[in-house]
Amino acid sequence: MLIHSRFKEYSVDFINSFEKVEELAKDKTTYFVVDNVVYNLYRQQLPNFDNDRLYLLHAVEANKTIDTVLSICEKMTEMVSKRNTHLVSIGGGITQDITGFVATNLYRGIKWTFFPTTLLAACDSCIGGKSSLNYKGFKNLLGSFYPPDAIYILPNVFKTLSTKDYCSGLGEVVKFNIIAGDNGLGKIEQTIDCLLNHDYKVLSEFIVSSLKFKKKFVEEDEFDKGIRILLNFAHTFGHAFEVVSNYEIPHGSAVALGMITANDISVQRGFIGTAYAKRIENVCEKILSNIALKKEWFELDNIVTAIKKDKKQTDNMIKAVLINSNHKLGVYGDIKATEIQKGLEHLLQVF
Amino acid sequence: MLIHSRFKEYSVDFINSFEKVEELAKDKTTYFVVDNVVYNLYRQQLPNFDNDRLYLLHAVEANKTIDTVLSICEKMTEMVSKRNTHLVSIGGGITQDITGFVATNLYRGIKWTFFPTTLLAACDSCIGGKSSLNYKGFKNLLGSFYPPDAIYILPNVFKTLSTKDYCSGLGEVVKFNIIAGDNGLGKIEQTIDCLLNHDYKVLSEFIVSSLKFKKKFVEEDEFDKGIRILLNFAHTFGHAFEVVSNYEIPHGSAVALGMITANDISVQRGFIGTAYAKRIENVCEKILSNIALKKEWFELDNIVTAIKKDKKQTDNMIKAVLINSNHKLGVYGDIKATEIQKGLEHLLQVF
Repeated sequence: MLIHSRFKEYSVDFINSFEKVEELAKDKTTYFVVDNVVYNLYRQQLPNFDNDRLYLLHAVEANKTIDTVLSICEKMTEMVSKRNTHLVSIGGGITQDITGFVATNLYRGIKWTFFPTTLLAACDSCIGGKSSLNYKGFKNLLGSFYPPDAIYILPNVFKTLSTKDYCSGLGEVVKFNIIAGDNGLGKIEQTIDCLLNHDYKVLSEFIVSSLKFKKKFVEEDEFDKGIRILLNFAHTFGHAFEVVSNYEIPHGSAVALGMITANDISVQRGFIGTAYAKRIENVCEKILSNIALKKEWFELDNIVTAIKKDKKQTDNMIKAVLINSNHKLGVYGDIKATEIQKGLEHLLQVF
Repeated sequence: MLIHSRFKEYSVDFINSFEKVEELAKDKTTYFVVDNVVYNLYRQQLPNFDNDRLYLLHAVEANKTIDTVLSICEKMTEMVSKRNTHLVSIGGGITQDITGFVATNLYRGIKWTFFPTTLLAACDSCIGGKSSLNYKGFKNLLGSFYPPDAIYILPNVFKTLSTKDYCSGLGEVVKFNIIAGDNGLGKIEQTIDCLLNHDYKVLSEFIVSSLKFKKKFVEEDEFDKGIRILLNFAHTFGHAFEVVSNYEIPHGSAVALGMITANDISVQRGFIGTAYAKRIENVCEKILSNIALKKEWFELDNIVTAIKKDKKQTDNMIKAVLINSNHKLGVYGDIKATEIQKGLEHLLQVF
């Protein structure tokens, strides 16, 4: 798949082994940033990296900071190739966020290849070029747009994901199917058990369809000034759940919870019927069954405070993307606290 | 003048007063970063900024760091407008570098208006979208491409520049005229005294012609992967002089010194005659007369070490842009230390 960007045209390919990494490691201009969990799991299949061209990353949310970025940049300054250096990163969304920020801002932008090793990164974040860093209490405050030059997806590595992380990835797969319209929901209802059972042949088809759906939006609105906001469906609430749970709820699972909340507001507004919302909820419940939710994560005041800190909330009103009466998406800038309260109460009844 | 960029089309306009700043200050989504020297000099003409929408910047090279960027970002998070915030910066190249980095990386890119208040920023850096931060010993290690949405040049403010800073700006004006070809040199020879005498009518014409010349390069090669390197004429050595003098030599003056060095190598290689090099040298001498140069700034080993740290030096050979036999520019990746040594000796004879 080719993605058109203002910066460059870039490719997404599926691969069967880490052979491509070995090939890249032979080139002395490549510098590798590898999630240390991935490195330890796949050490035998990965090449012997030169020590001075390898950075093992402890890829946790708390390290998604400028300090981590600077420590990688500092190591990279030792390379002779300077701005011809080719950064290769292997890991999930956190690895992507950190290395994307490095690739954009070191020497005003260097060549970058990314191997997403989580389902979440493979089905969603790997395209679109976003990078993000947290700063103090602010989630994803810093960041920019700068896509990799090439993306290689190796579905076999998903077998070593924890159930929690795997199901989190399914959260975004489900989201893309829901927002693609009625057929998408039917398709995901039929295959969700299959996906939960790690059928990677079927999963790869869903990854491709998710990326193809997203591709249209990011190509039309690369810098997220217009229609790309619709991909943010379920994220107003999702991000808040992540923050309030101190990231115990992983991103895709938070999005699944956000979908239920958003759909409850759609039901309150008469946009969709309870039956349609229930169908989506049933799919979400399956992928959320592995998480022990805590009641205190769903208190209105905390959720509203977290939402208001979100960079996409640009005035005093709360804005969210909702499914509306034609099962299409719309942006609503007038979400009331009372509507959110009812949505949260609904969530607490379900779980 | 309109500049076409992958990000947006942006404008450069000349203005006669700070009225435009007053207009912008009325909009509550604007946040101002103002060089504190400019602020103190023009306080009476500038509007009364709201305290929570003003950051006074101590714009020195030592503050061109990520820490300064983060402290501005942190203040800006208090704005309700979040990613609709409009950053307005007023100052020279350092202010531009810092606020450009903020504008690129805060909320993945915000609206940005820039008022260049130094000649150097007005005639050169304000277009092209580059931002830069220093990190530890590395000059301009971090940075990206992200132009302002609008640029307003107020030539009247150049009257309060120090002679050193004003002449530094003239260094880049001279450079643009030299690389534009023979006619450019003739024109600058005729008008250099007039420019040194602060004739802003003539100067404005030179600013326009410099920006128009640069515009072709940045539009064709926005991300500096190809022909834009030619604008780097005199900069391989210029940057090194800045570093070795610990920034006592300002940028444009360092570029003037770099021109003399580069041209000496062109003479050594038989690309240009001594008479042509001498004509350029005479112009450069006039704008360099205000600086007390120190002999220790021109020691080969220090210069070579500084050059090799430059991000544009991508292998073990030294690369520089030289004027070649047709008075055109060429990129030469085989500059020898002995050639640089002769160039430095020549410089020491001149000054």
